[in-house]
Amino acid sequence: MEKINLAQKFNLFNEYWSPRIAGELNETHVKLVKLKGEFIWHHHEAEDELFWVVKGRLLIKFRDRDLWLDEGELVIIPKGVEHMPVAEEEVHLVLIEPKTTVNTGNVQNERTAPEQWI
Amino acid sequence: MEKINLAQKFNLFNEYWSPRIAGELNETHVKLVKLKGEFIWHHHEAEDELFWVVKGRLLIKFRDRDLWLDEGELVIIPKGVEHMPVAEEEVHLVLIEPKTTVNTGNVQNERTAPEQWI
Repeated sequence: MEKINLAQKFNLFNEYWSPRIAGELNETHVKLVKLKGEFIWHHHEAEDELFWVVKGRLLIKFRDRDLWLDEGELVIIPKGVEHMPVAEEEVHLVLIEPKTTVNTGNVQNERTAPEQWI
Repeated sequence: MEKINLAQKFNLFNEYWSPRIAGELNETHVKLVKLKGEFIWHHHEAEDELFWVVKGRLLIKFRDRDLWLDEGELVIIPKGVEHMPVAEEEVHLVLIEPKTTVNTGNVQNERTAPEQWI
């Protein structure tokens, strides 16, 4: 049982859109991810996702509206809801979601990331 | 689906050791709690808990050691592990844990808090 210092962990990698698993509890993963640019439209069939911005400003596009998240803000995206994250500048994001969650959800393509611990 | 601004939410209450539920995902609650002083020794039979310090400095006592968490640091306490949080100064903490989790774990006393949304 070691503590996780978020700033230190984020310093350990630079790749965008490639989540790193930092911890596990109750079949849930705590993931750190750096974002820059646009992701893809997708949804998760069975998993709600928590997005928590720890650095920068994130736009999450939904089919019916845009949501901006600043540092210290979070949102829970329910299963089935289509979304596309967009980061004009670099964003550091913590994701909390079931271990079964794939980053691209219902889509499988070159942006689908493997499981990686940090 | 509304975003949660942590600073705004923490401004809405002042009671210590009384967690407020701010969100729910996959049978998990996101709780905000203000701490000051000592809590009680307890453990959770079935639930791992995530402690994330967003303001202040928290001491978590375990039976075999002390762990200090500063702002931006988090720890996952596995089920069954006895712990006692101690906050010399006010701490703002986010807890992520199963909906079944009771704040005093295996102990039921005057510090056991009811479920409250914020």
